[in-house]
Amino acid sequence: MVEPASYQEAIITPDEAAVIAQEVRRLIREGDERSAWEQLRHLHPADMGSIVSALPRTSREAIVAVMTPDAVAWMFRHINPVQAARVSARLGTGILSTALAQVNPRMALDILRRLPGSHAREVAEAIGHPVGDPAVDTAPLDTAAGFMVTGFPALQPDIAVGAARERLRQLAHDQHNFTHVFVVDDGGQLIGQVAMIDLAMSLDDTPLNRLTTPSAGLVSADTPREECARLQRHYNLTQLPVVEDGRLIGVIPSEFLLSASVAEDTEQILQVANVAGDSADGPLLGSIRTRLPWLTVNLATTFLAAFTVSLFESTLARVVVLAAFLPVVAGQGGIGGTQTLTLIVRAIALGELVGMRARRLLTRELILGLIHGLWLGVLVAVIAALWKQNLGLALVLGVAMLGNMAVAGMVGAGVPLLLRRLGVDPAVASAVVVTTVTDVCGFLLFLGIASAAISLIV
Amino acid sequence: MVEPASYQEAIITPDEAAVIAQEVRRLIREGDERSAWEQLRHLHPADMGSIVSALPRTSREAIVAVMTPDAVAWMFRHINPVQAARVSARLGTGILSTALAQVNPRMALDILRRLPGSHAREVAEAIGHPVGDPAVDTAPLDTAAGFMVTGFPALQPDIAVGAARERLRQLAHDQHNFTHVFVVDDGGQLIGQVAMIDLAMSLDDTPLNRLTTPSAGLVSADTPREECARLQRHYNLTQLPVVEDGRLIGVIPSEFLLSASVAEDTEQILQVANVAGDSADGPLLGSIRTRLPWLTVNLATTFLAAFTVSLFESTLARVVVLAAFLPVVAGQGGIGGTQTLTLIVRAIALGELVGMRARRLLTRELILGLIHGLWLGVLVAVIAALWKQNLGLALVLGVAMLGNMAVAGMVGAGVPLLLRRLGVDPAVASAVVVTTVTDVCGFLLFLGIASAAISLIV
Repeated sequence: MVEPASYQEAIITPDEAAVIAQEVRRLIREGDERSAWEQLRHLHPADMGSIVSALPRTSREAIVAVMTPDAVAWMFRHINPVQAARVSARLGTGILSTALAQVNPRMALDILRRLPGSHAREVAEAIGHPVGDPAVDTAPLDTAAGFMVTGFPALQPDIAVGAARERLRQLAHDQHNFTHVFVVDDGGQLIGQVAMIDLAMSLDDTPLNRLTTPSAGLVSADTPREECARLQRHYNLTQLPVVEDGRLIGVIPSEFLLSASVAEDTEQILQVANVAGDSADGPLLGSIRTRLPWLTVNLATTFLAAFTVSLFESTLARVVVLAAFLPVVAGQGGIGGTQTLTLIVRAIALGELVGMRARRLLTRELILGLIHGLWLGVLVAVIAALWKQNLGLALVLGVAMLGNMAVAGMVGAGVPLLLRRLGVDPAVASAVVVTTVTDVCGFLLFLGIASAAISLIV
Repeated sequence: MVEPASYQEAIITPDEAAVIAQEVRRLIREGDERSAWEQLRHLHPADMGSIVSALPRTSREAIVAVMTPDAVAWMFRHINPVQAARVSARLGTGILSTALAQVNPRMALDILRRLPGSHAREVAEAIGHPVGDPAVDTAPLDTAAGFMVTGFPALQPDIAVGAARERLRQLAHDQHNFTHVFVVDDGGQLIGQVAMIDLAMSLDDTPLNRLTTPSAGLVSADTPREECARLQRHYNLTQLPVVEDGRLIGVIPSEFLLSASVAEDTEQILQVANVAGDSADGPLLGSIRTRLPWLTVNLATTFLAAFTVSLFESTLARVVVLAAFLPVVAGQGGIGGTQTLTLIVRAIALGELVGMRARRLLTRELILGLIHGLWLGVLVAVIAALWKQNLGLALVLGVAMLGNMAVAGMVGAGVPLLLRRLGVDPAVASAVVVTTVTDVCGFLLFLGIASAAISLIV
């Protein structure tokens, strides 16, 4: 496989990539795919992949059609499996099977495993992979097994550095940038690892076991991607050994460990808005399937707020001006609760709250909520008094604001802590619970106090 | 410096860490700091750091007081600079300066640079660092300079692998796990890099320049941390060379590059809720300073919504039941807009929208909004008709829902795309703009249509 030698010098900024993408699109539109490919061929494969996968479907297929199979294979070879899946999911069966037939079988399998089921089966059939191959159909992509490679350097402990280097030369392993070589005994049991830098700089007669350190962070094939990403960050790892009954069965190399982390982050961010699995430019039907159920569920929570307000219809009928301030009390509570929530969820994800007392965190947020509520309550009361010339209304609004900010602090901290204790990922469900509670409590406080003190307002 | 040999075997889960933390806290409370330290001393320094930094202030100081200076130095030595800053920011000047006096000067400097100004100056004075040292006071921590190390392996191109390995042995460099060695010419100009695995596995007489590849991703000392993190992810890098006029002046090693990425992610997540810079357990005053200004600014946006509602007071006075449905229309719009927003912001951050037409994305979200709005509009109309037995109200509500979901889709996609074009980070300001627009438009649509069609409702 011939690799353009100069691509690594052509690192470009996102703005430059946008300009190239525009030019490529223009050339394809004019039917000049060859010139379009000329624009791309000297780029780093990561940039090539970004640009190609962001093209409209027909242009994407047109450009891949003029790339040599070698070039397609080279692009797949150098972009990470997640990007490769993005590009390949957007290619037709014909063009993808032609490309994958050029890639080594393991890598083709890797890409196939990341395609949607039916597409994967079509392509697998076209390139002659056995249909129904359990490795194709069942390997879960959100576990260590989905990111590990099974060709990796492993050495015996009782040799010296010179022999180890000799052995490394002989071993046919994937061209990943392994940062450590693993040391295993005769039965394949993992003993530890040697940093590549130690192997490179030690004298040839240094015994390997003197350089061996235990591996920080072992996972098994079914360890969730989330835990792999956590171990990487917490222990600053560049690669992860995958073991089964102590036997080394695979390695997650640095580039795949990094993709696993990025994929994990993305999923967590999208989960907060309940759009995990959706993409900004995929098929419409997929987006509807992801988003509409959640919007429908959420309707129930907004009706809960509506029901709360409707309890006070007689009060509202007497003092209709109250309606205008409903979004003020609820909105501020929602913002305050979300601030607390975001901090706590992130601190949990980073492991910063290890063994910290829930009571201490709750008290802290309650105090903060009261301080914020006091300031906002006074401010909102002054504005309302000036705007509506109604001191009673101003007083009720200020007190409701104070109360709801205190609620927001407690709920913003309490909900994620509670969900974590229940074993639920706090990132997923917290936001809607928190804003529902602050909405309902805000309306209850504001309209409740107004009803009780209606003589002050009317 | 003696390093406990076994720590790497003692990888623990967050739950196990929580149990140990509890035990440590109990022992310190009973005045038995020595036993508490026994609980910690065999842990991985990352876990030790997490547990120590999450202790209440007095306990934290008590445990650090019984750790040998060697052990403190060892902990600092192995945790990443961001974690080190967390731990050290929570230690008093006395105890911290005793500990830092044991650490090598460069590393002490690194930690000092990450402390708040006044604290840094006190500690610097205590350990005899020159006060006002520009390196201490001015190095920005959110740039490549804040993460690079200046002791790194660099070799000349005209030698062979054997000589390169010999040279690597002689060079005194920091004990970072460098994954590549850099190749520079006589003037220190960066030529390229050699992967440590290639150095380890190649024959001693292989010329180094045959293994040298150009470095993918160069940064300068003032490259923002954000861009370093982006390069790492986009090109799957394990370390980054820092150059000045082409001369190699530093290297960001893999563990610091990873911390930079994690710190960057955290900041982005916290920025969405406008709490960047805050922590879940820092001093109260810091939290107030971070959060209250934003809550105050947000008050203006909620008053915008209040003002919109108050425009329709006469309609509300005639049909007070409308008030109950205000949170339904606004709430659904807010959720829909946030879904779109989250997807687009993340896709921008990952560089997935390179050169993609804004018009295409906007049209897509508009269509999705209309489809979602149609379904939610019908649903909400049916519920309202059954609940309030008012067909006119149901019709108005359904139409307003349809309209506001379409607005939500357009605004959710349009605001981040517009902010990006203006050069503003879309993660920071998008959420509040989107929810303000969906609130105001929702109220305008719902109450506006209700006012126009009031004869249907009353």
